[in-house]
Amino acid sequence: MTDSSALASTSSTTGLSRTLTSALPEATPGKEVRLQGWVHRRRELAKVTFLIVRDRTGLAQVVLPAGTELPPEETPVEVVGTATANAQAPGGMELTQAMVTALSDPADTPAVELWRPTLDTGLPTLLDHAATTWRHPLQRAKWELAAASLRGFRETLDAQGFTEVQSPKLVEQATESGANVFQVDYFGRSAYLAQSPQFYKQQLVGVFERVYEVGPVFRAEPHDTVRHLAEYVSLDVELAFVEDHREVMACLRDVVAGMVTGIQGYAAAAVERLGLELPDVPEKIPTIHFREALEIAGAPADEPDLSPAHERALGDWAKAEHGSDLVLVEGYPTAHRAFYSHPDPEDPHWSRSFDLIFRGIELVSGAQRLHRYQDYVRTLEQRGYPYAPYATYVEAFKRGIPPHGGFAIGLERWVGRLVEAPNIREVTLFPRDLHRLAP
Amino acid sequence: MTDSSALASTSSTTGLSRTLTSALPEATPGKEVRLQGWVHRRRELAKVTFLIVRDRTGLAQVVLPAGTELPPEETPVEVVGTATANAQAPGGMELTQAMVTALSDPADTPAVELWRPTLDTGLPTLLDHAATTWRHPLQRAKWELAAASLRGFRETLDAQGFTEVQSPKLVEQATESGANVFQVDYFGRSAYLAQSPQFYKQQLVGVFERVYEVGPVFRAEPHDTVRHLAEYVSLDVELAFVEDHREVMACLRDVVAGMVTGIQGYAAAAVERLGLELPDVPEKIPTIHFREALEIAGAPADEPDLSPAHERALGDWAKAEHGSDLVLVEGYPTAHRAFYSHPDPEDPHWSRSFDLIFRGIELVSGAQRLHRYQDYVRTLEQRGYPYAPYATYVEAFKRGIPPHGGFAIGLERWVGRLVEAPNIREVTLFPRDLHRLAP
Repeated sequence: MTDSSALASTSSTTGLSRTLTSALPEATPGKEVRLQGWVHRRRELAKVTFLIVRDRTGLAQVVLPAGTELPPEETPVEVVGTATANAQAPGGMELTQAMVTALSDPADTPAVELWRPTLDTGLPTLLDHAATTWRHPLQRAKWELAAASLRGFRETLDAQGFTEVQSPKLVEQATESGANVFQVDYFGRSAYLAQSPQFYKQQLVGVFERVYEVGPVFRAEPHDTVRHLAEYVSLDVELAFVEDHREVMACLRDVVAGMVTGIQGYAAAAVERLGLELPDVPEKIPTIHFREALEIAGAPADEPDLSPAHERALGDWAKAEHGSDLVLVEGYPTAHRAFYSHPDPEDPHWSRSFDLIFRGIELVSGAQRLHRYQDYVRTLEQRGYPYAPYATYVEAFKRGIPPHGGFAIGLERWVGRLVEAPNIREVTLFPRDLHRLAP
Repeated sequence: MTDSSALASTSSTTGLSRTLTSALPEATPGKEVRLQGWVHRRRELAKVTFLIVRDRTGLAQVVLPAGTELPPEETPVEVVGTATANAQAPGGMELTQAMVTALSDPADTPAVELWRPTLDTGLPTLLDHAATTWRHPLQRAKWELAAASLRGFRETLDAQGFTEVQSPKLVEQATESGANVFQVDYFGRSAYLAQSPQFYKQQLVGVFERVYEVGPVFRAEPHDTVRHLAEYVSLDVELAFVEDHREVMACLRDVVAGMVTGIQGYAAAAVERLGLELPDVPEKIPTIHFREALEIAGAPADEPDLSPAHERALGDWAKAEHGSDLVLVEGYPTAHRAFYSHPDPEDPHWSRSFDLIFRGIELVSGAQRLHRYQDYVRTLEQRGYPYAPYATYVEAFKRGIPPHGGFAIGLERWVGRLVEAPNIREVTLFPRDLHRLAP
């Protein structure tokens, strides 16, 4: 099999189309083959020189005469040679009688030795040299998981009649509160970076009924933690004509199942490389009320929220009791959720909100939202929030917004829990935080 | 057919699942049916009252006794009634013996009459009330085109081994030049909003070979024109191991064809509603050199770039000569393209760059890029650019970046040309410009 792409470049000199390293084992022995990739490793032995070539799909071995001059590791190269069966080579096939051509200048020695099976390097070094260190197959695999998850996310929602939208990131008012917001000089006046597409996606259910957005959100987090970033990718979903938050939770369940299916279908090689165990997503994710969650976590009954330690305890409980990596907690106290959360009509102390805890960390927050203008006005009053900054948003509810709800998934948190990364920066291409604004 | 979604809400009172208005014509006459949507229009006649219900898929007619009290236009409602064949009803089926329940408070009268077949309203009013005015079926259709285009874009690239990535929007340096950049207060120091993912996508071909990104880009455009926005959605593509820019153009051709296929497959109803003629994308898009383009446009041979008028002339020429809505211009003068553009090795006065002109407006810019560190150093010097602001980016090319190229498509421009909108704001959900930061 050659490169599946219609774009597969054909060498101007040989007329031979490119073979990806993953397809080399299927090449016909004796046939001429053209690889493109990077010098992953050179090994000089007494009688022979090995060149390991890395491309986006894997590694291939090239056998060359002893003493062959090769460009240094990480130099992009083209190799034309003969496919030769060899049980000792990766995939049982290697290249012999090969000609190696550098496709750029010799590469400088990278900050870390990318040819080692695993990288034993501190996070700051990895991040300072991200564009190089992420080339390591175990690193690259993480973003293959992210991309495949997004495919699954969108496929699930596309099949359910959702419309993808893009809301503006430059906004006139801080989205949800004045805190933790980045200020922008907007043609001489002040604008802010959107902390979420929340206000827009709620208004847009009036247009499309069901919307989703994948985009950056911005939080001026003043604390340096292992689970917060100043900029991350949010997967936002909102759907109208719901009876209550349970319907939103059913949608979330389908979405998470779709993300796992996406990974299985589109990133199987990355899963294998990382030795991952993917979560089973049951038809119904174990669901408990916030009150029960506090009990299980051994927290006092008047705690207003779950702490990271409580979430870990709930993760352990779900695994032990239900064999589940996932647990939904519903009914958080209304007063401690965002003001647009819909109270439980039976007992407005509790809200129709939920969090999804994945392996002991909150991955998703969601809720049924208020949909009547007067409910917004009353809630803002009760909380002592000023009306003016919310006027445009709140007045949208005068124009016929149906009962609706939604949720947001943090992409980096999702991948972080999949690979059980201790620090979210390990699964972020170019993280932004209190201290880091480059590369 | 009922709502295809697993989430289709079932009425707590009737146990009946929702029917979308588009599926009403296929309902069995005499069967009870449940619609959800908005009051699109009420019509009081002497002997009967008509209610037109609008949902995300279309309109349905409900027949009620004369004098029935109905909530005002735009109120979300649920209607349970009997499917009844009537040749005069839309799709030949209407609802009779119906019960109408409001799902929220009565809606305020919208700023425009959404039930009219077309909206004869000025753009400022449409934009000021965007979350309501975009409910009009002819308006909503535009974003159905956008969403379907994105599906086609991604499907094309996913099938060709591309990886979707997300690069940071908060950056330490202005991406391409110091001009037209938004400044952000980043924890007390200065950051900027990325004008494009250009520098990141080039570095990331070192990791993934082929990447794409769909995300917001920010330009502090100080001019108020019909084709510029301060924030828009950029579809960025970059691919490595190319021979030259022609391979990048071949990829672009596939992508544009995929976007049209996406629209045909996923937004056929929107195309019909808008009465659109979609462009044919030929196997090879007519391609001319910049020099020829100047001649065709009747411009002097020493013009450094194509003006909007030249682009219109080229659009007309492509239509007349080739029956094509699309024309590629390659080989723009190197000195007038971005510094990372690859010169034509035969004659470095010209570059391996291109623009795609769609119906007389530039839709896409692309090029093969420089890939050798020394070429960057030399080019910065020649242009008199300082090294320091570009250091991180330029030094990435010391670490083995293969020959590569790419392009960027503006989503709003694409949809704007599809529907031949005179102003790009007409196809932007919530446009941002010199004067507009809300809603």
